[in-house]
Amino acid sequence: MTEYKLALVGFGGVNRALAQLIAERNEQWKTELGFTLKIVGVTDLFLGSIIGREGLDAGVLTRLPAAKGALAQLPGGEATALNEAVIKDSGADIIVEATFTNPVDGEPATSFCRWALEGGKHVVTTNKGPIALHGSELKALARRNNVAFEYEGSVMSGTPVIRLARQALAGSSIGGFEGILNGTSNFVLTSMEGGLGFAEAVAKAQELGYAEADPTADVEGHDVRLKVVILANELLDAKLTVSDVTCSGISSLSLGDIEQARQDGARWKLIGAAKRQADGSISASVEPRLLSNDHPLASVCGATNAVSFSTGLLGAVTVSGPGAGRTETAFALLSDIISIHQSRAHNQE
Amino acid sequence: MTEYKLALVGFGGVNRALAQLIAERNEQWKTELGFTLKIVGVTDLFLGSIIGREGLDAGVLTRLPAAKGALAQLPGGEATALNEAVIKDSGADIIVEATFTNPVDGEPATSFCRWALEGGKHVVTTNKGPIALHGSELKALARRNNVAFEYEGSVMSGTPVIRLARQALAGSSIGGFEGILNGTSNFVLTSMEGGLGFAEAVAKAQELGYAEADPTADVEGHDVRLKVVILANELLDAKLTVSDVTCSGISSLSLGDIEQARQDGARWKLIGAAKRQADGSISASVEPRLLSNDHPLASVCGATNAVSFSTGLLGAVTVSGPGAGRTETAFALLSDIISIHQSRAHNQE
Repeated sequence: MTEYKLALVGFGGVNRALAQLIAERNEQWKTELGFTLKIVGVTDLFLGSIIGREGLDAGVLTRLPAAKGALAQLPGGEATALNEAVIKDSGADIIVEATFTNPVDGEPATSFCRWALEGGKHVVTTNKGPIALHGSELKALARRNNVAFEYEGSVMSGTPVIRLARQALAGSSIGGFEGILNGTSNFVLTSMEGGLGFAEAVAKAQELGYAEADPTADVEGHDVRLKVVILANELLDAKLTVSDVTCSGISSLSLGDIEQARQDGARWKLIGAAKRQADGSISASVEPRLLSNDHPLASVCGATNAVSFSTGLLGAVTVSGPGAGRTETAFALLSDIISIHQSRAHNQE
Repeated sequence: MTEYKLALVGFGGVNRALAQLIAERNEQWKTELGFTLKIVGVTDLFLGSIIGREGLDAGVLTRLPAAKGALAQLPGGEATALNEAVIKDSGADIIVEATFTNPVDGEPATSFCRWALEGGKHVVTTNKGPIALHGSELKALARRNNVAFEYEGSVMSGTPVIRLARQALAGSSIGGFEGILNGTSNFVLTSMEGGLGFAEAVAKAQELGYAEADPTADVEGHDVRLKVVILANELLDAKLTVSDVTCSGISSLSLGDIEQARQDGARWKLIGAAKRQADGSISASVEPRLLSNDHPLASVCGATNAVSFSTGLLGAVTVSGPGAGRTETAFALLSDIISIHQSRAHNQE
């Protein structure tokens, strides 16, 4: 039985949910997936760090209080985050990076990824920063070190988008995509269709935990812009940086605009899109678009996300599902690990 | 460069479209996919057969007139379909089976698949009959002979459903699915929402080439039933046969029903579904269901198909795309070949 040793970097909701899945499902994965997972290290800027080369109890970790330095309560734990030691010296095969997205320089997550890849460890991450800002460097680093760098969860949490396009749509000639890639802004638009004003709709999203205290990144399209860079570079082999993507958000839409759209059989959606132009260049944007009701994305409501791929051989193929959520995002990490396992299994046959 | 030798069994629209793709894209596939395809045999009950171990010209094949015995016009061609010789003795690595679906006993396609698998050849097919009626036997035969048996195109043409579930959703705990799996019946329902009566809507579908002269299999759910068997056995590890799936079609729906649904914020859809019950058994059905407008399948209109997977870790994940079409279905065959190539490439690394 293959066992992968994981070091969890960042121990917020997502990696806690992964630990919970490990606690509940490791036995079942033996037969279902052909491997088990063992946590050998955890590090978190707030909670501290711990290394346990023989394996840490996933159930105990999930019950850790969210208190500063709490990992020091466990035998061998520390109140400080010894990130470098946990990444380099815990004996992990796979580094599970789930710290916060830094949209400015991708740090410290990018350094975490570099340390891991340079040390010959696979990296799975849900973090948009390293991929959107330093993706091509990190992918090259992974290739040179013959390890995997997987990031399905950086777009639409666990809903398969990157892997769907890369595997199942290989050869279909993807020429572009349009996506609803931010649940908060889509929830706001759906609430406005129900009659709430923009500010009220944002407040409702905050109440329900969809929107952060500062909703700017969500409603002004900055979050979607990072995802457009990731998808365009991955699916269209673009070399985009964030500044290549024009960006406008939904805060300028009024209830009158929403109502007018309804009367015209259409809906406003915040669309992140990229497209290969006739000259081979890639254009990309984030903007509110008026979609007629028969557009595949028009009916994607509330916090649901979706991407519609434009393909040469199949026309439009659309996938929709959750765009956020702790367990949903933890599943993305699991699906990355499954992908690593499938490649390894093939190699060893 | 890897080259796969193909024998095409059945040379109707789908395999002609595949030959067209080969004629147009073989060069581009070298870099894009890492392999090229060579046609070494073709057999068709109507057109006859031909073997060309050094490779047949794909372009010439696509221009073959649709006339009885037409393959005899080519050097070395025969007016009769020497199926067994083409499958067993053409030197093919992969048998591309795209003959008609026989919903009664799956023949002659099932025998074609058996000959190929027993002879150590991979099989890719778009044919529902062999999978729905003899799937477990043929899968076991493929395993025993260490070859692949792939059939993405048997459900929703080239839109990834089987491979999406098997690869990208592995580990997500799929507990069931609901699908709009027949374009003709969905087109009829959409036309009825536009005010046409059932008979008029069927006539319109026939005019546009969506419905066959006898639309029974489409509108009474028989076509969907085969697909439900295929998906339930594949995704839920069920052991269903066709008679285990309750089946009713859309011919009993009136314009009044459709209008009442509209007033209630809902839509009638012909849904093929299967679900794991609490006791572990699998229930499966084909029936018209009233879906509220916020259901992920409610907005799937016209000839588009869709499947919504119910997963333990992600909730609902839905994929929609074309459910038919020659090139779209030929892409399914290509995607099966890509999958075979990826497994082989891994094995040889």
